Amino acid sequence: MLRFAILVLMVLPALARAQQVTSAFLDNGMQVVVIEDHRAPAIFHSVWYRTGAADEPPGASGAAHFLEHLMFKATDTLAAGELSARVAALGGSDNAATSSDYTFYYQRIAADRLPVVMRMEADRMRNLRLTPDVIDTERGVIIEERNQRVENDPDALAREQGMAAQYLNHPYGAPVIGWMHEIEALGAADVMDFYHLYYSPNNAILVVAGDVTPGEVMAFAREYFGPIPPAPDLPERIRPDEPPQRAARHLLYADARVAQPHLWRTYLAPERNAGDQRDAAALVYLAEILGGSPFTSVLARDLTYDSRIATDTSAGYQGTSLDVTTFRLAVTPAAGVTPEQAEAAMDASLARFLDEGVDPARFERLRTQLRASEIYARDNVAGLAQRYGAALTSGLSVEDVQDWPRILLEVSAADVMRVARAVLVPERSVTTWVTPGEEEN
Amino acid sequence: MLRFAILVLMVLPALARAQQVTSAFLDNGMQVVVIEDHRAPAIFHSVWYRTGAADEPPGASGAAHFLEHLMFKATDTLAAGELSARVAALGGSDNAATSSDYTFYYQRIAADRLPVVMRMEADRMRNLRLTPDVIDTERGVIIEERNQRVENDPDALAREQGMAAQYLNHPYGAPVIGWMHEIEALGAADVMDFYHLYYSPNNAILVVAGDVTPGEVMAFAREYFGPIPPAPDLPERIRPDEPPQRAARHLLYADARVAQPHLWRTYLAPERNAGDQRDAAALVYLAEILGGSPFTSVLARDLTYDSRIATDTSAGYQGTSLDVTTFRLAVTPAAGVTPEQAEAAMDASLARFLDEGVDPARFERLRTQLRASEIYARDNVAGLAQRYGAALTSGLSVEDVQDWPRILLEVSAADVMRVARAVLVPERSVTTWVTPGEEEN
Repeated sequence: MLRFAILVLMVLPALARAQQVTSAFLDNGMQVVVIEDHRAPAIFHSVWYRTGAADEPPGASGAAHFLEHLMFKATDTLAAGELSARVAALGGSDNAATSSDYTFYYQRIAADRLPVVMRMEADRMRNLRLTPDVIDTERGVIIEERNQRVENDPDALAREQGMAAQYLNHPYGAPVIGWMHEIEALGAADVMDFYHLYYSPNNAILVVAGDVTPGEVMAFAREYFGPIPPAPDLPERIRPDEPPQRAARHLLYADARVAQPHLWRTYLAPERNAGDQRDAAALVYLAEILGGSPFTSVLARDLTYDSRIATDTSAGYQGTSLDVTTFRLAVTPAAGVTPEQAEAAMDASLARFLDEGVDPARFERLRTQLRASEIYARDNVAGLAQRYGAALTSGLSVEDVQDWPRILLEVSAADVMRVARAVLVPERSVTTWVTPGEEEN
Repeated sequence: MLRFAILVLMVLPALARAQQVTSAFLDNGMQVVVIEDHRAPAIFHSVWYRTGAADEPPGASGAAHFLEHLMFKATDTLAAGELSARVAALGGSDNAATSSDYTFYYQRIAADRLPVVMRMEADRMRNLRLTPDVIDTERGVIIEERNQRVENDPDALAREQGMAAQYLNHPYGAPVIGWMHEIEALGAADVMDFYHLYYSPNNAILVVAGDVTPGEVMAFAREYFGPIPPAPDLPERIRPDEPPQRAARHLLYADARVAQPHLWRTYLAPERNAGDQRDAAALVYLAEILGGSPFTSVLARDLTYDSRIATDTSAGYQGTSLDVTTFRLAVTPAAGVTPEQAEAAMDASLARFLDEGVDPARFERLRTQLRASEIYARDNVAGLAQRYGAALTSGLSVEDVQDWPRILLEVSAADVMRVARAVLVPERSVTTWVTPGEEEN
């Protein structure tokens, strides 16, 4: 997660020219994005819905993710599990994911199978047929997933509490998988209401990357998705805003399963906005400068090498988000160092950084590294598709995605210090200490 | 606020016999509660709606309170302000209040004016006529009210941040008056939707106390409220529950306007529930024992007299609430004592109390005091009416209100220690330090 900052930097101008990206719309409002890459006879076929956990009604957390699971069940023409089985039989793979802002479904498969997967994906956009049995069984699967991923993971539990404390009003404070007691209460009406409200062509984006042409993708899209009528009552996508955050928050999460005490801090931070991505780009640098490298970053220098206070430090920022996001720092204290001492050292390091500013040589090396990362990105056509899908479901346009690499390279050291001063504000922060406790939470 | 614990204890059995309370329903579902008290020729006439700030949709905080203001504007037959002016002209007074769980409107007036005020109250249950001008003007009034009551009061600002941190999921985390940015965005649709959804006879309770008989109140209620049809689509009153709270939270609120640093702590605590009020009754004792008296309570003894660490301590609990509420402790450190030291002393005092238990003599004195408080309650017919109104809009029945004094007297010292151990749990607490800061928040 903390390395994610690197992942979003890959489409630099040279690459944008190398890989042709086209965007068009079907008559029913569905956007179709095609990323041509003919080096291998394969495709990444994906449908992205502009809806996620933050669009759930109060009390129904987990509905978006529950529906994602149920989308692999029966439709009018497909048996439960048939879509994945057919993709696998054709040598492909498929999966799906839910975030706060989007839900997407994808298949990786041989390029000539495009119509096969698109027909099935269009089918389940509208024709899901659920029975109470199917819903009850899948609820059990999701409860087990939550047990595995959250209840059995102290860090995950602490992160949930931290996000709930970070967001005073915005639904990003609720976990994407849902609170357990709300998952347990989710019923057919919750998921089907969500499905009927949000799963429609005018709320979806088809992103196909690989050995295809825009012409053939559009032709198949018109055939399979074109007949689906747009939803007439799609709600405007406005979530409750945060009020001013006025108090620095500290959480003490104690859990016997924690082996090594550690702490992290999140600050409320601006996200990438359409036509206005410069602050987000500067925050990508800030994360790299403060915690991107275990050797040369500010926190590593001050806490690991100079003082031996910490064994590990990191920073993270992921700006692709519909609404206000977070900037994250983390410190693992060395043996014998308390979280309190480690936090004080982190604060001293941040104060020194804000006082001294960015080291120019380090800043230029970082810019070079970001430029270099395009070379790795070029091979990852699926990553490219996901970058477009995530951006387009988070309030950004194709143009914003294409501008991003240039904006990244234009960031100055002054920009970084400006966003550092604006974001690293205690009143908008939550610091979580994760420590071994007397008993399990 | 911290003395409120006493206010809820007043209807002891002797009093329940002295003041006759009757309850009946109109055909449209409206409950009518009459508290007869013929000592003075006056009445307290009130209508209570089972809706408050916690019933607002996400993003529209403040709508319930905004509507309360607008209820004094024009209806089909009353000019703006006419209701209050007529009540005043008749020698009476009127007002209204909004909580998280209810909104109520009342008039105190001569008993023979009952039909006059009831006709006007019934009128505005359905016939409010709002124009954009009226709404815009009143929004300005409410913004000014928030400026006065919250923005200019560091404690109020800190309390808002604390409640938002206390409730991870439940709408009690939002302020009743609303977040400023959401008040500013409230429009006619927000308040009128709320009005049409919740202001109906089957969601209202008429509580009349004073020199009246149930027969005359019912006759007038049938005449004025009886013709109003019930709302067919009244939503079930289910709010999002809290997930397990797993991390002790600390807030640091710094504000240059704070003269004297102080701190408080809230713990999530059970509310009075229908047929199940014993834990809440025990928490009333716990608040009194820990912080009810500046001379004899546990925190005063340990922090003020024994150690001179604090200049003031208090505790509070108010159990009339539809959903989970809070138990509150507060400490003002003496000069030269840091909040950290004061909090540590508070924690040591709580640990000592949990270890030593309740002093039996103090417990019996407290029980006697609670019994004695009925004498003062008897004179306060308006207070009695409000106790019924608040209880009946918070999930309790007339019987629960009448049982409460008996349940209070049945509380044992063991009950108090049981609820103390169940409630005084760090993981479910928020501790707020309010300190002078470098700059205003």
